[in-house]
Amino acid sequence: MPHPLLDRSAPDLAAALRSGAVSAADLASACLDRIAAREPDIAAWTFLDADKAMADARALDVQRALGRPLGPLHGLPVGVKDIIDTFDMPTENGTPVHRGRRPAADATLVARLRAAGALVLGKTVTSELAVYTPGPTRNPHDLARTPGGSSSGSAAAVAAGMVPLALATQTNGSTIRPASFCGIVGYKPSLGLLPRTGVLKQCFILDQPGLMARDLAGAALLAEALAGADPADEASRDPGFSFPAALAGPLPAPRLAFVRGPYWEQADASAREALDDFVAGLGGTAETMEPPPAFASAAAIHKVLMNAGIAEAFGPDYDRARDQLSSVVTGIVEAGRALSAVDFVAALSAREALRTAFAQLFAGYDAVVTPAALGVAPPREDGTGNPIMATTWTLLGAPALTLPLLRGAGALPLGVQLVGHPGEDRRLLRAAAWLERQPSPFL
Amino acid sequence: MPHPLLDRSAPDLAAALRSGAVSAADLASACLDRIAAREPDIAAWTFLDADKAMADARALDVQRALGRPLGPLHGLPVGVKDIIDTFDMPTENGTPVHRGRRPAADATLVARLRAAGALVLGKTVTSELAVYTPGPTRNPHDLARTPGGSSSGSAAAVAAGMVPLALATQTNGSTIRPASFCGIVGYKPSLGLLPRTGVLKQCFILDQPGLMARDLAGAALLAEALAGADPADEASRDPGFSFPAALAGPLPAPRLAFVRGPYWEQADASAREALDDFVAGLGGTAETMEPPPAFASAAAIHKVLMNAGIAEAFGPDYDRARDQLSSVVTGIVEAGRALSAVDFVAALSAREALRTAFAQLFAGYDAVVTPAALGVAPPREDGTGNPIMATTWTLLGAPALTLPLLRGAGALPLGVQLVGHPGEDRRLLRAAAWLERQPSPFL
Repeated sequence: MPHPLLDRSAPDLAAALRSGAVSAADLASACLDRIAAREPDIAAWTFLDADKAMADARALDVQRALGRPLGPLHGLPVGVKDIIDTFDMPTENGTPVHRGRRPAADATLVARLRAAGALVLGKTVTSELAVYTPGPTRNPHDLARTPGGSSSGSAAAVAAGMVPLALATQTNGSTIRPASFCGIVGYKPSLGLLPRTGVLKQCFILDQPGLMARDLAGAALLAEALAGADPADEASRDPGFSFPAALAGPLPAPRLAFVRGPYWEQADASAREALDDFVAGLGGTAETMEPPPAFASAAAIHKVLMNAGIAEAFGPDYDRARDQLSSVVTGIVEAGRALSAVDFVAALSAREALRTAFAQLFAGYDAVVTPAALGVAPPREDGTGNPIMATTWTLLGAPALTLPLLRGAGALPLGVQLVGHPGEDRRLLRAAAWLERQPSPFL
Repeated sequence: MPHPLLDRSAPDLAAALRSGAVSAADLASACLDRIAAREPDIAAWTFLDADKAMADARALDVQRALGRPLGPLHGLPVGVKDIIDTFDMPTENGTPVHRGRRPAADATLVARLRAAGALVLGKTVTSELAVYTPGPTRNPHDLARTPGGSSSGSAAAVAAGMVPLALATQTNGSTIRPASFCGIVGYKPSLGLLPRTGVLKQCFILDQPGLMARDLAGAALLAEALAGADPADEASRDPGFSFPAALAGPLPAPRLAFVRGPYWEQADASAREALDDFVAGLGGTAETMEPPPAFASAAAIHKVLMNAGIAEAFGPDYDRARDQLSSVVTGIVEAGRALSAVDFVAALSAREALRTAFAQLFAGYDAVVTPAALGVAPPREDGTGNPIMATTWTLLGAPALTLPLLRGAGALPLGVQLVGHPGEDRRLLRAAAWLERQPSPFL
């Protein structure tokens, strides 16, 4: 059911909060009402204390009333995936092994949320240890279907209007896939732009935080508050541009490369058709290209790095509480432990070669257009869906985002994924903003 | 014996070549004369064709006569370590397994040398596959001693005045140690500043090209021509500053941290004494600090990464021609093959933690002052010397250089190593330039 606050874009809400037209308490209350109405069906939250949320919101209104300087997210409620540490809420990583875990400190991302004035509303459901075993969350568009994973609760909560913004992560396809399934914007910046300190580690070569929002402007607002170097995350760095400003002003038509990719044949027919039609509708803006055969090795390379990373990161849990882990996780730990260091170095080297090939192949293009997922959200009993359409770009550390521009089978949402050059998020965002502004015949 | 050309600094020679006061042929001829006189004793070169060198030098003089634009290294002879590919000379990597190897293309560094107008004079001796088994090179300061390794020939050739500049590499201590032993400047820029395309790979996480010169200004001139992003080396990047300009102008006294380090007790007494006296002579400029105990793990972390890298890189040679490899190399390949991917990931993670600790600990310091080696060059029969004093900084990808400021046992050269923050080569070079300008009571 439409709502005068919950249907608004995050930047629009931020402006209303700043001006005082809307209070943080009013907005929090609206979010909590929506959650009360829909959470029994959707199950997006693993921790949510309505009294604490209202108290925190009122405190933000007091700050405003006292004339204190307001951060860019002042009063905006944000959901935080439950693998991202919060000092004042449990962070249980989707596993009984970490039940009751209460981190002593906020993750850097959460600290920056608070510093920007955001209201950390609660923690959202993740699949087990951000791998594949689903939590209880259902897709708001069809309760019989998965919201995707592993950032299941963040995607579902934003899609259901429970919260305008949420934090996600992606080591394989955990931001892009659920955003596509839930019909929202998912944005995984270049590796390094969002720091990982205090985020559950799977493999620090691949782990990349992501953002969920209803539109690109919301994702940019959130990225602006969160991106930047963190002394405790060696890979982190300053973006060197303003995210919101990247979307503003006149936007020339981007040069887009439409890449069906090596995994295209795995996609379902309606998804392939929808994307082909979409690209045809773009006329000359998108040029159809096929990457060299080496790109077909991306999934195998990614698997070596991820399995070894997980074996190292979750090894202690495995040794301590193997019986409380799913066979999926124990299988990955065992597979990772069986890999040699030489396997790992070879995979790292192969990744470097792929990054070089990507840079050269797409040098003249602002973004690659490619499927966000193999199709619409599958039934819940089939798991959280296949991340393969995101794997290659995660492996490369390339910025990627999905826009909810298409409908697939059963008129369910289907994202269009755009991928940019590593470190060139501004260029990607401008291409995406141009696309978002086009009149869409598909929705 | 002194020589009017061979005693001059590289930038001074470059200026004379540019003005026409010295011809490339005259300088090449002087270098070849020096080589003819000293090479029988020193054995720095693995490939040198005097006729070709003179023809190349004359071609450079013709370019000049024709008024063609001259590069910054126009006519300067440079020695190239024989693990760096040259299209017109063999590159045999110090191993009979690669005897007669003729690369089809120049390494990026060599292509940039030529583009800058340098005369690629010949290839310099490396230890076997740039590991520990020495080549025939002798230390110009004492022929019974090692020049150090693995960049043995480059260090000895510069020290003997055979060539004003040379290319080296460092995966452990292969630039800093030979430069210290030979009494010259060795400079290993931050990981990424000098591209590795076409350089023998040991472990791409650790492999870092280095430069040999008689003084800092020579190293800076060479770095200026060679540094910068290379599309084929993903780790490479532009420096964002001018190396020669970094040394110019008024130099404020740097803030130096004197770090004896966890391996200090392994250094010989005369080296410890010389460095302690040197630091005492600096008065308040250098503050003595001890890094946290975690730094003692640097060598173990480095060993995992290097052994696994070598196992992957040299594995095919091992499988094909094990009998032609030293037991040192086969032992490393076997040790590397025995490591698990989890070992490797754990080492990578530990390195990240160490980088973070370094950044925090030395945030207020322009450079760390620390020994360049355990002492003066050891006798040849003891091998190429211990790289341990460089290991930690190589592991971190930090910029490091050694200045020939001290004398150790037997009045042999002993370098002072300066280490900077990764990516902050400019700050390091300015600290080093200040130090180089101080009146030294030690030489």
